[in-house]
Amino acid sequence: MSEMRTVRGMRDLFGPEMRVRDFLMKTAIDVFQKFGYEPLDSPVVELWETLSAKGGEEVEAETFKFTDKGEREVGLRFDLTVPLARIVATNPHLPKPFKRYAVGKAWRYDRPQAGRYREFEQADVDIIGAASPAADAEVVLVALEFLRRIFSDKYRIKINNRKVLKGLTEQAGVPDSLAFECFRAIDKLDKIKREGVLEELENRSISKESSDFLIDAIAIKGSGASSLDKFREILTGSEIGIEGVDELLMMAEIFDEVGVGDKILFDMSLARGLDYYTGPVFEGRYLGKPKVGSILGGGRYDHLIEKFGGQPTPATGISLGIGRMIEVALARGLADKLLPELDVFIAPIKSPLVRYGMALQNDLVKQGISCEVD
Amino acid sequence: MSEMRTVRGMRDLFGPEMRVRDFLMKTAIDVFQKFGYEPLDSPVVELWETLSAKGGEEVEAETFKFTDKGEREVGLRFDLTVPLARIVATNPHLPKPFKRYAVGKAWRYDRPQAGRYREFEQADVDIIGAASPAADAEVVLVALEFLRRIFSDKYRIKINNRKVLKGLTEQAGVPDSLAFECFRAIDKLDKIKREGVLEELENRSISKESSDFLIDAIAIKGSGASSLDKFREILTGSEIGIEGVDELLMMAEIFDEVGVGDKILFDMSLARGLDYYTGPVFEGRYLGKPKVGSILGGGRYDHLIEKFGGQPTPATGISLGIGRMIEVALARGLADKLLPELDVFIAPIKSPLVRYGMALQNDLVKQGISCEVD
Repeated sequence: MSEMRTVRGMRDLFGPEMRVRDFLMKTAIDVFQKFGYEPLDSPVVELWETLSAKGGEEVEAETFKFTDKGEREVGLRFDLTVPLARIVATNPHLPKPFKRYAVGKAWRYDRPQAGRYREFEQADVDIIGAASPAADAEVVLVALEFLRRIFSDKYRIKINNRKVLKGLTEQAGVPDSLAFECFRAIDKLDKIKREGVLEELENRSISKESSDFLIDAIAIKGSGASSLDKFREILTGSEIGIEGVDELLMMAEIFDEVGVGDKILFDMSLARGLDYYTGPVFEGRYLGKPKVGSILGGGRYDHLIEKFGGQPTPATGISLGIGRMIEVALARGLADKLLPELDVFIAPIKSPLVRYGMALQNDLVKQGISCEVD
Repeated sequence: MSEMRTVRGMRDLFGPEMRVRDFLMKTAIDVFQKFGYEPLDSPVVELWETLSAKGGEEVEAETFKFTDKGEREVGLRFDLTVPLARIVATNPHLPKPFKRYAVGKAWRYDRPQAGRYREFEQADVDIIGAASPAADAEVVLVALEFLRRIFSDKYRIKINNRKVLKGLTEQAGVPDSLAFECFRAIDKLDKIKREGVLEELENRSISKESSDFLIDAIAIKGSGASSLDKFREILTGSEIGIEGVDELLMMAEIFDEVGVGDKILFDMSLARGLDYYTGPVFEGRYLGKPKVGSILGGGRYDHLIEKFGGQPTPATGISLGIGRMIEVALARGLADKLLPELDVFIAPIKSPLVRYGMALQNDLVKQGISCEVD
């Protein structure tokens, strides 16, 4: 018999990693519940019709898709947002705002890399039916409270607004049809630096003048409400841009009031790859070592529920990437603090005594005391 | 756009059902941990080579099987035992006894029925590397403690031993080659009654004399160690049969000592469908209404790890069928007791006050108090 393995890009979890994962999930659920979110679970398998409704060219290539015995095309969910959008679209009478959390696995047919798996855990909160930037601020606050409990203070959430980006391309004189391509190039600033972005913009037939304007603008960032003055200055004249700044300002005032302004960086270069965001967008990073890329992301997606056949419905949410956080938490020594603590260990000296040991064990467990019998 | 649905036989969970499911899972995990079991998680997708190693003709028909983009045959796991067997087989140096728990979804391509879904939740404990019936008794005690916490006293676990059944067919003069077919017929006693079993035995070319002997024997049942006297009497002369009774006796003594003897019914008709059990077998039922069939099952499977290419390794375990228990718990009104309790609700009277409300919310949550802002 050949040696049995896991499926490529997937892994068994036990020992320290498993303990850390469970702790992260448990902490996330506790924070979500404390903020008043209700749990929702949906099937791991969705109809292909549902999965493909989100659009984006990468869906087909990145999905575990198959045909079931009833000849239906189905696939494993690649996130927890699509099932939510399907549920909201098909249950128009759900009371709004609908604040739900979901924790569970999702699957992507990526190339497996160190720390990246084809099966991974996510923990999401979303608010459906609330258009105010206060809702965007709330999901960010939920994520911040989770990060506070896990990572001391070595974390930050970057925030921008798609409307700000739209205003920026307007101000730069970029035609509408090229705006989204611009966002994609801008989003790579961290990876490919200033020169890389300029090259990408050039390849997309953006004029030198426009590119120069954009590259200076996207360097603008800062914490707190006052840092948005620079955003406002550069966007003066663009209605949509200023609308975006006003939304960010309302979020900033909330963050300042809550006292977490220093954990937020308003950053004009943040675009987020997915094309369905319509307002504020968020991305979280761990600032210490190991560097693991983005550990959470989200934003406002006011048109997604319509794509799933539902009524126009404002929506915002944030997704915690539990998989990548496991690595960080392990490196920080969290696993040692989570060693299972056994209250009582009973070692019967002769085997006929085992049953007395087990009776004692049972009594202890009933009283909430953990106990093992050898 | 056509209306989006869940995949046939799968469902979304929210509201009361979701709260009940979460409570059942949380309770199961707490009991498992108190008894000293460690968590293990494995991928939802396994290679077909792994899934099919368990054997049994129904595996192919009942599995969500597909070919991935790398042209590998894979499938969704149909239980949590197969992944465990794979992991033990491929990690021969795992310290033994290895006591692990696993909670998660499994998938079976059954015909969907009321209360039966193609995607369902299980919660399992298993002990790998312990041959003593004390290990079998322990996993039963774990299940009993879980049932005690959830269902007051309306539950019972039936226990038998495959060795007892083997001895029974020996005593009945049934040829070895027909023994397993006999078990299958006997196992249906509850459903098809005495006459049905006799007919099935006749169809399997069992002689009238043998059938009469068997049908009387499998009516034998009782609680407590003394009830096994009747098992012993009828099996006198069969070495394997008496070995089986002795194992049950050791379990019975433990149950009596623990004080749960009245929750156990030793029942000679219990066989359990799966062919891989080698010793004690268990099946739990809820005795009140609604009737939902078996809510847990398990047994000893000493040869399964070899089938997965591992060393011969004794193993026993029990699986809680969380899906079916949700129905019972709902009918018992558990959901009402689990209504989410919000400690504080803040309703700002003017929208500029929202940020003060959110700051207060954040302070409260930090202190473990749940809070929502309107």
